[in-house]
Amino acid sequence: MQLENNLILQAARGQQVPRIPVWLMRQAGRILPEYRAVREKLSGFLELVKTPELAAEVTVQPVDVLKVDAAIIFSDILVIPEAMGLPYQMIEKKGPYFPETIGTIKQVDQLKVADPESELGYVLDAIRLVKKELDRKVPLIGFAGAPWTVFAYMVEGSGSKTFSKARRMLYQHPDLSHALLEKITASTIRYLQAQIDAGADLIQVFDSWAGILPKSHYLTYSLAYIRRICQSIDQVPITVFAKGAYFALPELADLPCETIGLDWQMDVDSARKLTQPKKSLQGNLDPCVLYGSFQDIARQTNEMIDRFGSQQYIANLGHGVYPDTSVDAVKCFIDTVKNYR
Amino acid sequence: MQLENNLILQAARGQQVPRIPVWLMRQAGRILPEYRAVREKLSGFLELVKTPELAAEVTVQPVDVLKVDAAIIFSDILVIPEAMGLPYQMIEKKGPYFPETIGTIKQVDQLKVADPESELGYVLDAIRLVKKELDRKVPLIGFAGAPWTVFAYMVEGSGSKTFSKARRMLYQHPDLSHALLEKITASTIRYLQAQIDAGADLIQVFDSWAGILPKSHYLTYSLAYIRRICQSIDQVPITVFAKGAYFALPELADLPCETIGLDWQMDVDSARKLTQPKKSLQGNLDPCVLYGSFQDIARQTNEMIDRFGSQQYIANLGHGVYPDTSVDAVKCFIDTVKNYR
Repeated sequence: MQLENNLILQAARGQQVPRIPVWLMRQAGRILPEYRAVREKLSGFLELVKTPELAAEVTVQPVDVLKVDAAIIFSDILVIPEAMGLPYQMIEKKGPYFPETIGTIKQVDQLKVADPESELGYVLDAIRLVKKELDRKVPLIGFAGAPWTVFAYMVEGSGSKTFSKARRMLYQHPDLSHALLEKITASTIRYLQAQIDAGADLIQVFDSWAGILPKSHYLTYSLAYIRRICQSIDQVPITVFAKGAYFALPELADLPCETIGLDWQMDVDSARKLTQPKKSLQGNLDPCVLYGSFQDIARQTNEMIDRFGSQQYIANLGHGVYPDTSVDAVKCFIDTVKNYR
Repeated sequence: MQLENNLILQAARGQQVPRIPVWLMRQAGRILPEYRAVREKLSGFLELVKTPELAAEVTVQPVDVLKVDAAIIFSDILVIPEAMGLPYQMIEKKGPYFPETIGTIKQVDQLKVADPESELGYVLDAIRLVKKELDRKVPLIGFAGAPWTVFAYMVEGSGSKTFSKARRMLYQHPDLSHALLEKITASTIRYLQAQIDAGADLIQVFDSWAGILPKSHYLTYSLAYIRRICQSIDQVPITVFAKGAYFALPELADLPCETIGLDWQMDVDSARKLTQPKKSLQGNLDPCVLYGSFQDIARQTNEMIDRFGSQQYIANLGHGVYPDTSVDAVKCFIDTVKNYR
């Protein structure tokens, strides 16, 4: 079952690689005309997420079109609350919206611990289809949201600049908060295990809203639960991407995971110092660089790699690629990484 | 013309103070029933901003009700683009919206450098009224947005999670970007000088969107222009609040200003180390702490002050107070600061 190209797994494990592996967060998505063609025929984003054949198709597209070194399953971090009994909608141009939000301990008690096979079978089916289609060419990345980030949406009900409703919960009802985080964490561990069983070769945990917590809260309400997830998984490498959690890099470096993802504002040199030799790093080009000329993209990509070095490193952007980025700019980024020497 | 209470000015200048001064960002606003009573009678936020008698009334309210150690003029950072010829609306529950945005050098050329007396007279009149009503009780803080933050709205057209349109401009059109920033900076300097002439005793520069730029861009496109503003003002102390710019604290410490504002995620100890003895600090309680019990508010406020120390320090939140915070919680915060020993 050896993969033809397992550069990402080698880099994550700190093994010597002949060249730097590269993929992009949100590579399966609106940047590709092939994706938009599939998406146009559907009523909405969640229909695509819940139709395994189509989710598999758009997952594989960037491997074929962009020649990235990994696929990442096309899905959404908020399928977990839905599987726990809290459904949501994805509103065009606005983002996720939960008609009901969590505010009482009774509501927390009523939530289920998600059963992946019965509630999230569509993701697992998509993973199995992708593995077949990829035919061992490149690894497949599975993922989940970090418990804090999932919690934030379940309490706030939608995206927010400050997530003050979710953060208020931490101050006013720490017990309820921990109870909810426990349940999300238990669901997430089962879900990720099921993804691995279905074929995921590496797991990434996205803590998209790490950056709105003060450090003490971050350690208590987010990192502690990410740690449990990392501890529960030992079959495949794990990457933790905690956007904005610059203040917790030393603690992230102590997680039992393989790779730390950096956002585009984190300083590469100090991140290396804080995490070496325990962790590989992933990231962190500003997605806006891809709006520049090919010459500027190549220059800034090379400068980024100069800082990271070419081992224990997975090249990526520092955030998801913006939907209006040109495919040629993305290819320029990928080619620059592949030709780095 | 000596003020009865000039604790904030003394603390900003690094002079010994008998007790810690305190105010809150967004203290003039929806937290106060007195504010909501004024606001309800009006068609919108901008009507309040543009009616000097009413802007003055809500500016003074928190001094009377909350007993804070300074007033801050009730206004908005986006009056500057409007005075330059780019009008905007404030849409209820959504935020600012510019019907026209800046995308070409021709548009930049067509913008004026704002003339405060003719275009922003309503702010200056409000300042004069406030000074009369305050009757030398406490200082009045004037303010402006940092040029980068104002630029971000003028190019993006509204708030945004990533401001990718504004940041794209920096990568694609650096010359246009600098031309626009020059014009905003020139307007801002005139505007702040006019505020000082009208009676402002201290100036705060708000770089609300500092935290979305990579460091190299932050230094080039934001800090360089803030520096010019600081250099142009020597009559009153200046506070620079660059939200999210943790990565630029050493450079902020080198600005010719008196005080650096910290957001609630910045680490107090390392900020002190990086800025001492040159700068006073302001901040930085998580606004969500005010959702907790009085006991927790008092405890966390005292712990915060333990870290800052009681000199070269102005107590504040690490961001604007959230509109649904109770007045009693705010008073508990203020009283805790005043009684700290």
